[in-house]
Amino acid sequence: MPADGYRAAFAGRRVLITGGLGFIGSNLARRLLDCGAELTLVDSLIPEYGGNLFNLDGIRDRVTVNVSDVRDEHSMRALIQDCAYLFNLAGQTSHLDSMTAPETDLEINCRAQLSILEAARKHNPAVRIVFASTRQVYGKPKYLPVDEEHLLSPVDVNGINKMAGEWYHILYNNVYGIRACALRLTNTYGPRMRVKDARQTFLGIWIRLVLQGRPFEVWEGEQLRDFTYVDDAVEAFLLAATRESATGRVFNLGGESPISLRELAGLLVELNGGGRYVQRAFPPERKRIDIGDYYSDHRLIRGELGWGPTVPLREGLRRTLDFYRAHLGHYV
Amino acid sequence: MPADGYRAAFAGRRVLITGGLGFIGSNLARRLLDCGAELTLVDSLIPEYGGNLFNLDGIRDRVTVNVSDVRDEHSMRALIQDCAYLFNLAGQTSHLDSMTAPETDLEINCRAQLSILEAARKHNPAVRIVFASTRQVYGKPKYLPVDEEHLLSPVDVNGINKMAGEWYHILYNNVYGIRACALRLTNTYGPRMRVKDARQTFLGIWIRLVLQGRPFEVWEGEQLRDFTYVDDAVEAFLLAATRESATGRVFNLGGESPISLRELAGLLVELNGGGRYVQRAFPPERKRIDIGDYYSDHRLIRGELGWGPTVPLREGLRRTLDFYRAHLGHYV
Repeated sequence: MPADGYRAAFAGRRVLITGGLGFIGSNLARRLLDCGAELTLVDSLIPEYGGNLFNLDGIRDRVTVNVSDVRDEHSMRALIQDCAYLFNLAGQTSHLDSMTAPETDLEINCRAQLSILEAARKHNPAVRIVFASTRQVYGKPKYLPVDEEHLLSPVDVNGINKMAGEWYHILYNNVYGIRACALRLTNTYGPRMRVKDARQTFLGIWIRLVLQGRPFEVWEGEQLRDFTYVDDAVEAFLLAATRESATGRVFNLGGESPISLRELAGLLVELNGGGRYVQRAFPPERKRIDIGDYYSDHRLIRGELGWGPTVPLREGLRRTLDFYRAHLGHYV
Repeated sequence: MPADGYRAAFAGRRVLITGGLGFIGSNLARRLLDCGAELTLVDSLIPEYGGNLFNLDGIRDRVTVNVSDVRDEHSMRALIQDCAYLFNLAGQTSHLDSMTAPETDLEINCRAQLSILEAARKHNPAVRIVFASTRQVYGKPKYLPVDEEHLLSPVDVNGINKMAGEWYHILYNNVYGIRACALRLTNTYGPRMRVKDARQTFLGIWIRLVLQGRPFEVWEGEQLRDFTYVDDAVEAFLLAATRESATGRVFNLGGESPISLRELAGLLVELNGGGRYVQRAFPPERKRIDIGDYYSDHRLIRGELGWGPTVPLREGLRRTLDFYRAHLGHYV
């Protein structure tokens, strides 16, 4: 089966993306348009989250945009009625914000997920759902690389609530036959990511600062991480939505090989042709929820869905720098 | 250290029990009174839950009763201010109700827990908390007996929300130093349990029916379960509240040895000196969330806190039957 064996599955089908104006959602939208899908993108456009109208630059007239919040049950009930696929990407992603405003995180990452699934159960049980989960559910790894058998020991409110949100999806699959699965994303990066601050990923703020000719901060620096280029992440969502063997499952995504943050910072400066970073200790409020080294074992999704990362980090960072060099004004 | 080495820890101390008019809460209250604690019992007295004023028979004038709901943030904030210990037992316990009213379960088992912990963080960070969790977080066992390293794979909304509620406690311990731990209860039984229906445990309804001379239903019957007599469960709460080594930990409780439901039914009829049960297949809505065999490995709490079940099932059932023979009118 070729990598785009899913193309026919989306042609002429109605697809809903929550968080559709965000980083991954808008990249996913572009690929789904190529497949001929009829798209509705739901986004709250809350300034602290990832939605950005510029993410639809060039495709704005080919998609339906619905500005609403996944916490708005009535809106979600109406929107979910007639879609064949739901890519459920809307979420509160900031670890720190989840600690300072835990109930907001709960509303978005738990309660809204449950009400979306209830709406699917009552009004569109044939919908197929892929949920964007996170490696944060694992907490501090007990072994590396982390596979799906690793105990879940979240270290922040975000990790706990995403864990619940993920399990609601699996439960509704198992009990009610709402075909759903979840992808546990690690650091995803690429064009259209949030670079205004570190709410989505620290790499966003690094990229902005290096392009602005300002020094960026590397906290500690020896931590290992793996990175998924956004096109690879999008590919995983499309496979997960269309392969029968994905339903009811949870899969790790990951990167080619782990890299320390210090090495990553050096690579970024090199690819940018200049720049500067400073290493410093963790701020105390960040240190308390840090997970140390993390990189994932993604053999399960490779075996089941044939997915693997294809864009090397160097190439992905180059494309990302090129994108923000051209469009930074729309993201700051 | 003798089993009641905690006695001095509670003498003259203010202790709050949520769900204090319920089954385990009211039994715990009696033991804490023996230790000289000053008790406030919080209970919503919602008819579908476990609270029952008769559970305070004989101790009513020695405790402060505060009728309020753990979802009432203002009430909880006021009540938590000056207590040394919080036994956090209030919860929605029905697996079936969690499926028919998932958002109510979320409100009680997730959101209220988070707001209780936020209140503790802001207003009484020195409080020590023991949270009543459940074996339901494990879902259908992958191996037996189930120890604390077993993956969490909840099979109903209740299991997911209790998992989140448990992890909030561990997180607030780890990040904010609110000393908290959680006990994963299996089938707890004994005087003051709910016998009106199966919302708390199927064994309650069996006991009521056998005492009323009516047949009770055994669904399938070969499933294995373990049972904890309530006095043993209470002992675990008291140890967990007072031993330093318990903070930040999660412990299974359990019973002496597993027994099939069919054997349990036979034992109940024998001890009652008569009675009758019928075996039938699971109702479909119950089958979908059934976990098969379950019994726990409770060596961790034995090693760390010296806890183990002491009341044999036969003796515990006898005491329970005696209690309801005398007081059934207050529970139906």
